[in-house]
Amino acid sequence: MALSLIILAAGQGTRMNSDLPKVLHPLAGAPLVVHAMAAGRALDPERIVVVAGHGAAQVTQAVQEFDPEAQVVLQDEQLGTAHAVAQARGHLGQGDAVVLYGDTPFITPETLERLVAARRQHDVVVLGFRALDPGRYGRLVTSGEDLLAIVEWKDASPEEREIELCNSGVLAADAGLLFDLIDQVGNANAAGEYYLTDIVGLARARGLSAGVVLCDEAETLGINTRTELAAAEAAFQIRKRAELLETGVTMQAADTVFLAYDTIIGRDAVIGPNVVFGPRVTVESGAEIRAFCHLEGCHISRGATVGPFARLRPGAELAEDVHVGNFVEIKNAILDEGVKVGHLTYLGDATVGEHTNIGAGTVTCNYDGVMKHRTTIGRQAFIGSDTMLVAPVTIGDGALTASGSVITMDVPSGALAVGRTRQVNKPGLATRLFEKLRALKAARG
Amino acid sequence: MALSLIILAAGQGTRMNSDLPKVLHPLAGAPLVVHAMAAGRALDPERIVVVAGHGAAQVTQAVQEFDPEAQVVLQDEQLGTAHAVAQARGHLGQGDAVVLYGDTPFITPETLERLVAARRQHDVVVLGFRALDPGRYGRLVTSGEDLLAIVEWKDASPEEREIELCNSGVLAADAGLLFDLIDQVGNANAAGEYYLTDIVGLARARGLSAGVVLCDEAETLGINTRTELAAAEAAFQIRKRAELLETGVTMQAADTVFLAYDTIIGRDAVIGPNVVFGPRVTVESGAEIRAFCHLEGCHISRGATVGPFARLRPGAELAEDVHVGNFVEIKNAILDEGVKVGHLTYLGDATVGEHTNIGAGTVTCNYDGVMKHRTTIGRQAFIGSDTMLVAPVTIGDGALTASGSVITMDVPSGALAVGRTRQVNKPGLATRLFEKLRALKAARG
Amino acid sequence: MALSLIILAAGQGTRMNSDLPKVLHPLAGAPLVVHAMAAGRALDPERIVVVAGHGAAQVTQAVQEFDPEAQVVLQDEQLGTAHAVAQARGHLGQGDAVVLYGDTPFITPETLERLVAARRQHDVVVLGFRALDPGRYGRLVTSGEDLLAIVEWKDASPEEREIELCNSGVLAADAGLLFDLIDQVGNANAAGEYYLTDIVGLARARGLSAGVVLCDEAETLGINTRTELAAAEAAFQIRKRAELLETGVTMQAADTVFLAYDTIIGRDAVIGPNVVFGPRVTVESGAEIRAFCHLEGCHISRGATVGPFARLRPGAELAEDVHVGNFVEIKNAILDEGVKVGHLTYLGDATVGEHTNIGAGTVTCNYDGVMKHRTTIGRQAFIGSDTMLVAPVTIGDGALTASGSVITMDVPSGALAVGRTRQVNKPGLATRLFEKLRALKAARG
Repeated sequence: MALSLIILAAGQGTRMNSDLPKVLHPLAGAPLVVHAMAAGRALDPERIVVVAGHGAAQVTQAVQEFDPEAQVVLQDEQLGTAHAVAQARGHLGQGDAVVLYGDTPFITPETLERLVAARRQHDVVVLGFRALDPGRYGRLVTSGEDLLAIVEWKDASPEEREIELCNSGVLAADAGLLFDLIDQVGNANAAGEYYLTDIVGLARARGLSAGVVLCDEAETLGINTRTELAAAEAAFQIRKRAELLETGVTMQAADTVFLAYDTIIGRDAVIGPNVVFGPRVTVESGAEIRAFCHLEGCHISRGATVGPFARLRPGAELAEDVHVGNFVEIKNAILDEGVKVGHLTYLGDATVGEHTNIGAGTVTCNYDGVMKHRTTIGRQAFIGSDTMLVAPVTIGDGALTASGSVITMDVPSGALAVGRTRQVNKPGLATRLFEKLRALKAARG
Repeated sequence: MALSLIILAAGQGTRMNSDLPKVLHPLAGAPLVVHAMAAGRALDPERIVVVAGHGAAQVTQAVQEFDPEAQVVLQDEQLGTAHAVAQARGHLGQGDAVVLYGDTPFITPETLERLVAARRQHDVVVLGFRALDPGRYGRLVTSGEDLLAIVEWKDASPEEREIELCNSGVLAADAGLLFDLIDQVGNANAAGEYYLTDIVGLARARGLSAGVVLCDEAETLGINTRTELAAAEAAFQIRKRAELLETGVTMQAADTVFLAYDTIIGRDAVIGPNVVFGPRVTVESGAEIRAFCHLEGCHISRGATVGPFARLRPGAELAEDVHVGNFVEIKNAILDEGVKVGHLTYLGDATVGEHTNIGAGTVTCNYDGVMKHRTTIGRQAFIGSDTMLVAPVTIGDGALTASGSVITMDVPSGALAVGRTRQVNKPGLATRLFEKLRALKAARG
Repeated sequence: MALSLIILAAGQGTRMNSDLPKVLHPLAGAPLVVHAMAAGRALDPERIVVVAGHGAAQVTQAVQEFDPEAQVVLQDEQLGTAHAVAQARGHLGQGDAVVLYGDTPFITPETLERLVAARRQHDVVVLGFRALDPGRYGRLVTSGEDLLAIVEWKDASPEEREIELCNSGVLAADAGLLFDLIDQVGNANAAGEYYLTDIVGLARARGLSAGVVLCDEAETLGINTRTELAAAEAAFQIRKRAELLETGVTMQAADTVFLAYDTIIGRDAVIGPNVVFGPRVTVESGAEIRAFCHLEGCHISRGATVGPFARLRPGAELAEDVHVGNFVEIKNAILDEGVKVGHLTYLGDATVGEHTNIGAGTVTCNYDGVMKHRTTIGRQAFIGSDTMLVAPVTIGDGALTASGSVITMDVPSGALAVGRTRQVNKPGLATRLFEKLRALKAARG
């Protein structure tokens, strides 16, 4: 059945002490709001509506970068969660609405699936959890299987504060019903806010049923300060590392590997110490990433070896058995099977054919100060050390560039390209030069 | 009122198992003794006197590198703390003297301010703490507000050993009085040493008053072994990271960032994983330091981006919106607004004008084997990839150097400088060369 | 007395979720099986026999890489530990046999020495430990000093399961006796396996004596999952770092240093944050390894400084006071006293004489696409920045290569070698070129 997500992401997050809206602070390489969106995707939603407020322009950009079809609606004033949800009116389709939070990144897809499944039993379903220390969380007042009401801590009686079952804020209901109920929500409470939580009592008053689905407290963790964000990041990393170990990834020092929320690594791939994964990286089974590598938006195939000290930037595609060595940067470049780029090289905006060898100190000069251009290198070519490939330029199959050459014209297949001067030795001149320099230095004091 | 610091730093630190004097072992990028000096600076002391013994020459160098006006006096024999303080006689001015320890790096400026303020009430003020496990610390014998005596553990009675209030060793008194009292200190005790702590009892005997100021036990932590130093370093890093998070610094993996005692980072600056800060680094608000950077003695302005894999050495000054990319080293160089140095470059002893682009593989050849020279590059210039800038040399505004050129002469503004040979293609020669090499290899077996 | 080791290493390690045989998973830079071999070496064994099964070819290679004289025998079917040991029959010499396990890397040499020493008192000696949680370990049934039997958990009575003394599996006996006893072992037990542990009861039945030597439970830790391996690695690193601190190594952030099982570092050597040691590295007393270095199979002498961001590969030999700086790779190269290689350089298959200076961007072009060749550089030479040394090539003492030169011929001592074109300035051409490019870009849209 069709379903929409409403993600509340309007808060400033004053306690983050930042100009960046809270939901854009990064966790595991993605803004917090993207984590909520990614979990919600498991429900295959027809529509995603993000309610933005503070820094709405930046939030819109981040949301639509992750999902260009997601809609962003504006909440100008922050009058409470019911008011926030109300901004999504008119943007949802038929069927259920699920309300999520942009600062609550750990809700799992499995939990959301259970939440939605429980809609078969209840008109409104709320996600709850048993808190170790219930503190100031809203409480779920239940009777048997039925949820009677949600009470905010500020408005709770002493008896209600004894309840251990807490409200995560996440809920599911028919979209039409949801907005109907919200219309009835008032703000006659301690905080003077329109609480989304009031819809449970309102639904009950209409004779409708409400229920609770339980999840682990850790899933409901909201981020309010940078210290909480740091703790959340640490928790994420520990969990993701453990998952990868279980699926058969070899990590020599797992606790020094920094993973992104979407990192994919195959079985028996080897990851060395101090490797940093940015978003959108796939490492195939049996590839090896050595120590001190920095990877973003790239794909590393079976049998490839990378690093140590390599940087793969977005668009780096390494085919099987490619070797990328130390102090090498690859950007927007396709390296075909068996290509070797061992040392001190920059390949950007390039295509390299299979089994070609790129010498140390090679640079694709892809920028002329105004535009970027592409370099194309054929199969089994040999690019001599310190070759400058001034793009746009094409090197043919089996071609050879002499070490130290600046290549400004295309090189045909099988040709040798030379762009350097013959060496001349000047006997005794080094000795005389150094004598002169030393004398000069002595004279200067 | 004028005030002097006396810092005891003469011990060898046998348990460090090192040839380096204990107080010179580094914590957070600075020798231990510098931490005591830095805390003491909060009192705006007229004079700082460091009492050195083991490795006095090295200690003197480190002390005066941090504060050229600090005096170092020698304690030839190690006869006890009173004997150590006595060596400072004649080097202090009028007013109070505060005694600190070169191996006790965590005393806070706030604690020292409270210590000195308490001199209004007492002739001698001692810094004490309540120990979790009092063990072999000296004990403070008190009666109400008054400190009656300090008893070393070795000399303490069973009842005195029950006291939980311990002596940090730090104290404040009028300098003249301090030396007067020290003259009376004897060495008739279990260790045969002249204890500074005896001055409390001696002052009381003269009818003078002594008092205690309390601080947290953690502040009084002394370093005696490398294991203790490692624990102190870990404690320092945890505290400093937490402080930076609270002031609004974004650290993606705070527990992998290594900070120096004097690191300054602005609000909303972004620090990636695995960044190492040496001493004297300032990162302005909104700058970004990516993963795997190594920074020392440098300044990074708002909007600048650095790394991954960049090294900024002392004297690197990055203006707003500068970009320094991967495998780039900057030393003693001023990069004006919007300069870009993307890849595999060494800029040393250089000045680069605004919005200039430095190509990959550029090197300032600043050393001729005898002397160092300077490179000056103008505004909006374009240094082609693999340009060697043989210093001293000046490149004008808007000038362009062709990729692969060795620049030995100044380049006028708006000029193109070329120092390379035209490329020649030799058809089929690569194919024949590789055939020959393969045959040769086969022949060799 | 002569002694042989039998190391059981035939298991697949299904729970590792890997194609790699369990005993080849790396711990501290060496396959697990090598740890058992290294500990056993302390007994100065005449023969080492490794019993391989799953992945026997790979196991053989790893075993013989560590010790070319070690023998590998095959266990085709996995019928139990007694059956595994039986495969070694005919490969052992006279004297004792000690049975170790390829997945139990933490047994110490000291423990093995105590085990063997106890053979003076007993015919069979078993290594036992008191388990914190005995769980499913086999139990040692004792009476006073005598070991009566080993009972597998599956076969143990409720009373036997109460015993806290557990079996590590490690044991020592006369080799002849061992195989005699194994011949009698049956498989009439819960698992249907031939248990090595049965030999204790069999020996007792013959009137022979058996005894127990105790070790710490941590030594007996076996690795069965990647999570256990990660925990073992963490435990190893913590222990090795503590050992190095105690012996006087300076580590600024010890918890970020990754050590190998055989790392040797001298007193007062300084190791910065984020340094990774592969196998076979020796750092002499007083050398300094800065942050972000990656070292394998190399030797760094007193007074040498390395990094940050340096990679030393196998065969890198740094003499006293050598300096290797950032973004530098050294492979199979000998650097004599005082050599300086400061920046962005690759030296492979090279010899460099004392006090020679290697400029930034230098590359030894050691590979011609078919074969590797050697570069030899003399004393007090000066290799200008961006020099390509096309091997095989020799540079004489005190010679100088001009920056940006490609050196294809030998350079005599004291000579200056130049292989570059003179710079030409073309006034106004940069301005016109950029105008043209901008117009072109505008025209393209």
